Amino acid sequence: MGKLARKVALIGAGMSKFGQHFPEKRNPDMWVDAWIDAVEKTDNGIEPKDIDACYVGNYSSDLFNHQGHLGPQMADLVGLTPKPAARFEGACASSGIAMRQAILAIASGVHDVIAVCGCECMTEQPTVNVTDVLATASDNIFEYPAGATFPGLYGTIASAHFKKYGTTAEDLMNVGIKNHANGAENPYAQMQQSIKDLMNSKKARYEKQGREVPDWQNELDFLKSSSNPIIAYPLRLFDCSLITDGAACLFLAAENKAKDFTDTPLWIAGTGQGSAALSVHDREEITSFAATKEAARQAYEMAGMGPKDIQIAEVHDCFTIAEILAMEDLGFYEKGKAAEAVRNGESKLDGKLPINTSGGLKSKGHPVGATGAAQAVEIFKQMRGIAERNRQVQFDVERAMTHNLGGSGASCVVTIYEK
Amino acid sequence: MGKLARKVALIGAGMSKFGQHFPEKRNPDMWVDAWIDAVEKTDNGIEPKDIDACYVGNYSSDLFNHQGHLGPQMADLVGLTPKPAARFEGACASSGIAMRQAILAIASGVHDVIAVCGCECMTEQPTVNVTDVLATASDNIFEYPAGATFPGLYGTIASAHFKKYGTTAEDLMNVGIKNHANGAENPYAQMQQSIKDLMNSKKARYEKQGREVPDWQNELDFLKSSSNPIIAYPLRLFDCSLITDGAACLFLAAENKAKDFTDTPLWIAGTGQGSAALSVHDREEITSFAATKEAARQAYEMAGMGPKDIQIAEVHDCFTIAEILAMEDLGFYEKGKAAEAVRNGESKLDGKLPINTSGGLKSKGHPVGATGAAQAVEIFKQMRGIAERNRQVQFDVERAMTHNLGGSGASCVVTIYEK
Repeated sequence: MGKLARKVALIGAGMSKFGQHFPEKRNPDMWVDAWIDAVEKTDNGIEPKDIDACYVGNYSSDLFNHQGHLGPQMADLVGLTPKPAARFEGACASSGIAMRQAILAIASGVHDVIAVCGCECMTEQPTVNVTDVLATASDNIFEYPAGATFPGLYGTIASAHFKKYGTTAEDLMNVGIKNHANGAENPYAQMQQSIKDLMNSKKARYEKQGREVPDWQNELDFLKSSSNPIIAYPLRLFDCSLITDGAACLFLAAENKAKDFTDTPLWIAGTGQGSAALSVHDREEITSFAATKEAARQAYEMAGMGPKDIQIAEVHDCFTIAEILAMEDLGFYEKGKAAEAVRNGESKLDGKLPINTSGGLKSKGHPVGATGAAQAVEIFKQMRGIAERNRQVQFDVERAMTHNLGGSGASCVVTIYEK
Repeated sequence: MGKLARKVALIGAGMSKFGQHFPEKRNPDMWVDAWIDAVEKTDNGIEPKDIDACYVGNYSSDLFNHQGHLGPQMADLVGLTPKPAARFEGACASSGIAMRQAILAIASGVHDVIAVCGCECMTEQPTVNVTDVLATASDNIFEYPAGATFPGLYGTIASAHFKKYGTTAEDLMNVGIKNHANGAENPYAQMQQSIKDLMNSKKARYEKQGREVPDWQNELDFLKSSSNPIIAYPLRLFDCSLITDGAACLFLAAENKAKDFTDTPLWIAGTGQGSAALSVHDREEITSFAATKEAARQAYEMAGMGPKDIQIAEVHDCFTIAEILAMEDLGFYEKGKAAEAVRNGESKLDGKLPINTSGGLKSKGHPVGATGAAQAVEIFKQMRGIAERNRQVQFDVERAMTHNLGGSGASCVVTIYEK
């Protein structure tokens, strides 16, 4: 793997509010919201004439919305026709892949500025269909017909991690508590409530209804109760990310163009991508994702950095166990040591390595095709010092990472940013 | 639009037999067939260790096969795991886009050798569902609910072309007659029968059955009869491409690596991509495809060539009218003049600009996501002088073009090859 033939910068980034928006808004509407937000966050502004191409990350508008061929549709909505427009798919890593391809396309010399769209409108389908659509990203011969939807596959992975490393259900709950606390500070998040807020509002509701108020002393008590039902053992409801509609928009530019748009471009220091067997049973081990390790290896090598250089990271917490795996597979912690770090608060906003300051997929929401691009939006804000409310980290972020996973880990894109 | 930062070559190409293969073969099986064929056609051989990434063009395995996330699946089947793997979608231009992104990724300096997969398994669905799946690449708010499937949209385009330029139904039939004659010489084609063969076998069948034998003097008589029913006026059955299962495989390499695999690399002289409004009614004109014109403009500019430099071309004849439009929009003929050129035999195998020597989508078949890559396979064969049976053109092809269209023309990729 070689170096980028020329430097590429992230010059602007924005997103729609994440949440349940159908039928008021669909992919086209949310994409326009994200576009406007990103234009506003590009220092000197940016216009369609400045942009060479539109790269769309989307998992399955085919199945969610019966609309394929999103590339030209999204390009047309923001005035980019007749420029190149295409869709990129790698399950939940779709817009991470779109972003990576945009980086490579700019480095190739052919394009100077590219708009990346990530979008997914999931709530057009009832929940049972959403599970079915998502399961289409697993193996439809060996996994899906056996009933192994993603909660089941990640439950299996969690059980194996518990057995091998002594990780516990409580360790997973700590991830969710942290991410919800962050999401409460993100006005773009789907669930802007901490677990404590959720617990207290439930207590208040019970009291108001004259029902016996549960004796929950803290968030863990609440998360261990029947208010947090098992979805796929050992994963409970609050171990699972959300079903979400949303879009994100990124503007990427070649070095010689970046300065036209901002005095403080964020450079792409490294990009890496890995793959693994689609079926979990086909892999050598399931307590680690080979695709993450390969993507990270490439990204670190290109950046000339190691895990210790990363100051904040957005990682793909589609399930709480996935955040634990990512912390280990990205090299931040030895295998089996991430849970302890979470317990010690190291990944909190004020910890030594803040992770998912956005609230993560768990609390910000997970419109699958938008997630990779939305991770970059959070890094953009944190590195610029413009994260909303009380979630801006209290140091100057010079180096950061996004980690975007697809399916049960068969696809992964890792990106390293530096000032 | 800039130049490629480094030169990229097509070093090997192959395909599966096109046809109706489900349930014996699905995308994974056909992809392996195509891979083996391409390895055999790579002079010095090629192995997984030589390849950096797997780029998969596929329109909608989601809807055709209920299987998304093809990138890692296809990579794993040929031993490329854990290398980068992703899927690229632009309706019927999907593998043209995958190929283009592979070219840019190599030019970027990050990858040296990439395997491009194009695949689609359509016959898992009954024909009525196939029409529905394909219509998902049109606008699902304005076109699809109004019943405007692709035969209807292309019928509208044909009618407008008839009115504006005096093109006739017979002109379209001449395109089909030529392409079937070529396809009869292609052992990989779905329909290896000329229109004359089809006519004569129908006559023979009638005679055998004791029925009155139609008095068809030539192919046009046959194509004007009720044996060639109207599908969407003015398009008849033999104006429409086929519903097909198939896959194609391309190996692309950076200049410094290409020589390891062959002494006669085919260079990518130019690549261009364009887009247009998804809905036909949103376009300024419908007798010309703006996306084709833009893609061609970029490709010619990059190659430093013009239409007169192209010696053979594979163009996207999803309907016969689309071949007429392509001949004009690519600049080979003035608007309204292509039909006459077809009538004069200029686009035949022995004409001055042979078009669709493979048989085209019309006769070779149109597994939508495989088509763009399969067009490159034919160019590879013609430029190498290894086209099967009697369809090798009788001159040394130094410069050639592929034209891959998506939907009703909302996406287009044009590639120019030179020795």
